[in-house]
Amino acid sequence: MKPIKVGLMGLGTVGTGVVRIVEGHQEDLQRQVGCPILIEKILVQNLGKSRSVTIAEEKLTENPWEIIEHPEIDVVVEVMGGIEPAKTYILAALERGKHIVTANKDLMAIHGPEILAKAAEKSCDVLYEASVAGGVPILRTLVEGFSSDRITKIMGIVNGTTNYILSKMSREGASYDEVLKEAQQLGYAEADPTSDVGGFDAAYKMTILARLGFHVNVSFKDVQVKGITEVTKEDIGYSNALGYEMKLLGIAESQDGYISLSVEPTMVRKTHPLASVNGVFNAIYVYGEAVGETMFYGPGAGEMPTATSVVADIVAVVKNLKLGVNGRRSTMASKEIRLKSEEQIASKYFILLHVEDHAGVLAQITQVFAKYEVSLESVIQQPNPHNPKAELVIITHSASKSSMNQVLRHFEQIGVVDKVKSVYRVEG
Amino acid sequence: MKPIKVGLMGLGTVGTGVVRIVEGHQEDLQRQVGCPILIEKILVQNLGKSRSVTIAEEKLTENPWEIIEHPEIDVVVEVMGGIEPAKTYILAALERGKHIVTANKDLMAIHGPEILAKAAEKSCDVLYEASVAGGVPILRTLVEGFSSDRITKIMGIVNGTTNYILSKMSREGASYDEVLKEAQQLGYAEADPTSDVGGFDAAYKMTILARLGFHVNVSFKDVQVKGITEVTKEDIGYSNALGYEMKLLGIAESQDGYISLSVEPTMVRKTHPLASVNGVFNAIYVYGEAVGETMFYGPGAGEMPTATSVVADIVAVVKNLKLGVNGRRSTMASKEIRLKSEEQIASKYFILLHVEDHAGVLAQITQVFAKYEVSLESVIQQPNPHNPKAELVIITHSASKSSMNQVLRHFEQIGVVDKVKSVYRVEG
Repeated sequence: MKPIKVGLMGLGTVGTGVVRIVEGHQEDLQRQVGCPILIEKILVQNLGKSRSVTIAEEKLTENPWEIIEHPEIDVVVEVMGGIEPAKTYILAALERGKHIVTANKDLMAIHGPEILAKAAEKSCDVLYEASVAGGVPILRTLVEGFSSDRITKIMGIVNGTTNYILSKMSREGASYDEVLKEAQQLGYAEADPTSDVGGFDAAYKMTILARLGFHVNVSFKDVQVKGITEVTKEDIGYSNALGYEMKLLGIAESQDGYISLSVEPTMVRKTHPLASVNGVFNAIYVYGEAVGETMFYGPGAGEMPTATSVVADIVAVVKNLKLGVNGRRSTMASKEIRLKSEEQIASKYFILLHVEDHAGVLAQITQVFAKYEVSLESVIQQPNPHNPKAELVIITHSASKSSMNQVLRHFEQIGVVDKVKSVYRVEG
Repeated sequence: MKPIKVGLMGLGTVGTGVVRIVEGHQEDLQRQVGCPILIEKILVQNLGKSRSVTIAEEKLTENPWEIIEHPEIDVVVEVMGGIEPAKTYILAALERGKHIVTANKDLMAIHGPEILAKAAEKSCDVLYEASVAGGVPILRTLVEGFSSDRITKIMGIVNGTTNYILSKMSREGASYDEVLKEAQQLGYAEADPTSDVGGFDAAYKMTILARLGFHVNVSFKDVQVKGITEVTKEDIGYSNALGYEMKLLGIAESQDGYISLSVEPTMVRKTHPLASVNGVFNAIYVYGEAVGETMFYGPGAGEMPTATSVVADIVAVVKNLKLGVNGRRSTMASKEIRLKSEEQIASKYFILLHVEDHAGVLAQITQVFAKYEVSLESVIQQPNPHNPKAELVIITHSASKSSMNQVLRHFEQIGVVDKVKSVYRVEG
């Protein structure tokens, strides 16, 4: 049986895993698709570099065009990462009728619509399961498993680095700086951790999830992003004491045709399934009108988990090739996006205030909440042993973001509030 | 655009949900498949019965052959349940080239291979996502999401009734009989609860999961089944005190071509993702060689969750119809099953013994474990206030099932062991 030939662009962590799985599971793959799957050429940065997998020398190339213009390669697998030159290579390969499998979240989040339009024009597949939550097949689940339902909410722990940091801060009572340093030493965080701890990596992934879940043309810039750099161990202490876990949550909501998208540190009630997702694991919680609550959990990164998703996409492309139906199963986002205003975005909030410690203060503060129609679920006032100011912890009932912002602005103008220490969204 | 016509067999809970979704989400469904999906005929037991959905009278029939022989119906959806007459109807519909969507776990567990062989002969689709874990798209995930991986372990909480009972016993310290009675009053358990509490319902589902996960011809009778009827509140008390949750787990394992399959009450360590799955929710934990640990969580039953999976399968069949590729994506189990012997099945065990309360007893008992090479992780001995016998709680390291059975038989022969009160598998 004639093999299907694959061109692999990138031989870093994920690329190496792809080689291992395609070679190690060749018999299982053949049983499923009915022919061998062969990695014909691999684009590398440096031919001479030593590698942890053995690869015949003639398969390696430093020239991308040996893959893009290869007459026998049907499938191009891009695992280089970054926007350029990946985008140029992928568009050039699509132009020549090659199908694409990619793990590139930045690229699909920012230029996904352009790439998918080109693929549709050329009747090509573009699959990118590995771009979100590594080994968790969440994109297939949204597109196929929930094709019959209306998804109204997606909440994701989709960045392993920040979940590792917050889990460790919570378990050990350690500070952000201490844990970040340790994560960097262990290789769980980059030397420049901005993309992870700033929430941008999670925002890329939420862009992709919202597009597929809500069928709208979400853009990366539609995501309100706040990272974890200002989360203190005091915040996490309060969170735990009140029955919550602090998580960096991506939250996408769709109601009556209006969408909101954010990434922010969020207090998740301990009984919620997302609360027990610890360490570098990822999980995506999906709420559908008909199905209700579901959650999908697994490793969000790593050589073999990510490669599992990449090779599952290769199998899907090859099955389509065998049936002659490539490019005919993709779902393009069909609706224009309408973003929710701050009046339409609602959630519970946690607020930590430093306030003057004398009679009547609590009354003044609760009047501010009442003025903007924010009702309160719980209020805890306690003296602060390290500070002449009292600490006031408030959890609100569901309130609009605009009302909360009015409350916070009002606090700046009244003397009894010394400082708004922390404000977090609350879920679960 | 010409509609695709569907014949629905059964208008109970799930059938009603299917009508609601197909009608309520018609626009979304059309956008995905490019044509209307129309429920043309519905098989009911009694035309005169009052219903919670409004259906034109001429659509209802008491005659299954009006669907099976209908010239314009392409897809038959079977949600009657039970083996017969569902099996006869499905085979007759396949014989006439109709595609099948079913939620029937008993039927697919027991007669799946026969039905899938007939479907292959006729180039028809048979999809049955709703047969396992209601709204959780776990069958697609095994077949497509993990097509590239080798799955070695599947553990499932796949019966909501028993999980509700065990969760409530754990939370409230109540007895099995009390909670069962309450579950029956609330409609969470049947008047005759045998299929649920005896573990048979879970065993049907594990049969289906193991077939798709391991690509082997598993039969229902290959599953070792033990229900929850003998779980006492004392067992659950010990379980909690030692850091475990008692769960009815289906466990399917595959190593070196050998399979083991069981359903039994199991103590799951509280840090394991399955431990926090409570109430009527279902979850399936899947371990793959490459991907590692994953888990899929959601509602295991109910009108709308189950109907979500049924309608997602209808969408998949209709997409295949549009592409002309029905019956060409199904994966038949390809390997013959080889079951593990009791020497090959290994796990940790919890054992609760009532023993004589005098010097030397512990030594005698631990010698029995040593004789059969079962090593111990922890031993707790304490006087029993209600009993002159002492209670001895033992958790072993991983041991073969055959060794454990030898240990237990040996205990019957020595006087110091008054009674083996409980033995449970331990996971996590």
